[in-house]
Amino acid sequence: MKDLKQRIIAAVTDDLEAVETALGDNLTPHFELVRQVAGHILYAGGKRLRPLLMMLSARICGYQGDHAAKYAVIFEYLHAATLLHDDVVDGGELRRGAPAAHKQWDSPTAVLTGDFLLARALSLAAHTGLPAVIETIAAITEQMSQAEIEQLARKGDLKLTEAAYLDVIRCKTAVLFQGACRVGGLISASSQQQVKTLGDYGHHLGMAFQMADDLLDYTVDTSALGKKVGADLREGKLTLPVIFTLQQAGVQEQEWITELIQAGDFTPAQFERLIDLLREVGGISYTRRCAAGHVQQAKAALEIFPVCPERAILEDIADYALVRKA
Amino acid sequence: MKDLKQRIIAAVTDDLEAVETALGDNLTPHFELVRQVAGHILYAGGKRLRPLLMMLSARICGYQGDHAAKYAVIFEYLHAATLLHDDVVDGGELRRGAPAAHKQWDSPTAVLTGDFLLARALSLAAHTGLPAVIETIAAITEQMSQAEIEQLARKGDLKLTEAAYLDVIRCKTAVLFQGACRVGGLISASSQQQVKTLGDYGHHLGMAFQMADDLLDYTVDTSALGKKVGADLREGKLTLPVIFTLQQAGVQEQEWITELIQAGDFTPAQFERLIDLLREVGGISYTRRCAAGHVQQAKAALEIFPVCPERAILEDIADYALVRKA
Repeated sequence: MKDLKQRIIAAVTDDLEAVETALGDNLTPHFELVRQVAGHILYAGGKRLRPLLMMLSARICGYQGDHAAKYAVIFEYLHAATLLHDDVVDGGELRRGAPAAHKQWDSPTAVLTGDFLLARALSLAAHTGLPAVIETIAAITEQMSQAEIEQLARKGDLKLTEAAYLDVIRCKTAVLFQGACRVGGLISASSQQQVKTLGDYGHHLGMAFQMADDLLDYTVDTSALGKKVGADLREGKLTLPVIFTLQQAGVQEQEWITELIQAGDFTPAQFERLIDLLREVGGISYTRRCAAGHVQQAKAALEIFPVCPERAILEDIADYALVRKA
Repeated sequence: MKDLKQRIIAAVTDDLEAVETALGDNLTPHFELVRQVAGHILYAGGKRLRPLLMMLSARICGYQGDHAAKYAVIFEYLHAATLLHDDVVDGGELRRGAPAAHKQWDSPTAVLTGDFLLARALSLAAHTGLPAVIETIAAITEQMSQAEIEQLARKGDLKLTEAAYLDVIRCKTAVLFQGACRVGGLISASSQQQVKTLGDYGHHLGMAFQMADDLLDYTVDTSALGKKVGADLREGKLTLPVIFTLQQAGVQEQEWITELIQAGDFTPAQFERLIDLLREVGGISYTRRCAAGHVQQAKAALEIFPVCPERAILEDIADYALVRKA
């Protein structure tokens, strides 16, 4: 797995540098506090995956312009804006190992900086002058905010179905991946088929990515992720490993899990027993299979493109979604 | 004054009805909680002034299309999104006489519903297919969020200058008025001069409107506004009546006001003494003169248009900005 990660990074070094430069350029002219708070979230070790997807998507379509990195920043800003508001909404105290912005400063500052980054993303989208790009960005923000509200309203809802979960992660995560890939195609004046295909790749990658993320909460020591162990469940956020297990477990186990979720807190021993149950009943392996299926569909979508370095990196990124540990 | 208000309302009854219909149409397909929270702020007795300005601006330019009300809704959504986030940021408990959304529900719900309304506004802007409209909306959101952060950072800053205050109210309030009027011109395919002129009208109207709003905190029983007496000062928000008075008052009075602001709370008797000071030193009358100057400039901008019913209503609205009591 280390090889895969290093191979991806080696292949995109120039792109990553261009994104870092553009991220900074776009913040320079702004008010000091905005810069500090935005910088706190933007420079906290994000992988720049979303902007990278846009740039690779543009390149696989033969983009020749000079603005790929500038427009790619849109997707890091949207992502950062969501993280800022999410942490306020969830009361999350840590983000990438550092205090969340609403803890380092306060909730109002985090809310308003999120608003600013969202607005900045839209300004950049407007600069493309392409209505299809702007419609994509507007639709992304609309779906993401709706999904967050839905997730909030369904906190602790033990009746959350797999279908509802899939819809939430699609709107919360996959639409942004999908949008980044689509916009890469759109700025390259690609064919409709290429744009759609890139969107499909992004959608499936995003689904796999979020499922893998939800798995991490139950499979690795999440203190390595810079957040508390079992954070999702503490927040009453039911994800696929738990949803599947609740469906398939025996009555006694169902009741035990239900009580745990309703209590909203648990001892390390209880959490270990939960993980054992998720393994035994199959919630972990089912989630991994679903994620793997999306990785396959993501890679299959790329087949309309000729074999080329960009396609190879996008395939590697799809594989990486599943094996990453942080 | 009652005559003026009634004359305006009578002249725009059809427009207001069209806006109400469009507001509802745009919320119908959404998730129940979103509808409830958005409806709470949207149907709490707002004057629909911003959408109305867009529609009148379109009409004065001879707009013949069917989408004026639909696009006008953009400005009510932007306004409502700002109010939702502002109340979270300021901790304001009442809004138009009812509990603020973050009190009726909670802060996360208010933040996310604000995000949703902002996203919805952008989607509608994207639907116009006019890059200039989209750039205007993006610039509005960017400037408004920056101004809110700046205002937050400067809370209780006794050194806030008149110039800094003017910049904050421009970005916080006037850009939205300006944008609504500009967009009315833009969708009508008007001349650049007409669009600029409408923007100037909106800018000056917005400045006058905000100054008048800031005056209301010190001139009327603000419980009639559905908020607490002296709310601005309790929040450490310095506005022009106080800024001017702090500059011009004697040393003793300056110290007394400074202590009051730093204490962050005051008795009714202290508040009455403050109002007396604002009157004596001239903060009230100076603010009123500044607002009146902007009303004049707003009306002067309209002179490029021939005398017509729309121009008369826009002039009435400018006059109303100054005399309104709520």
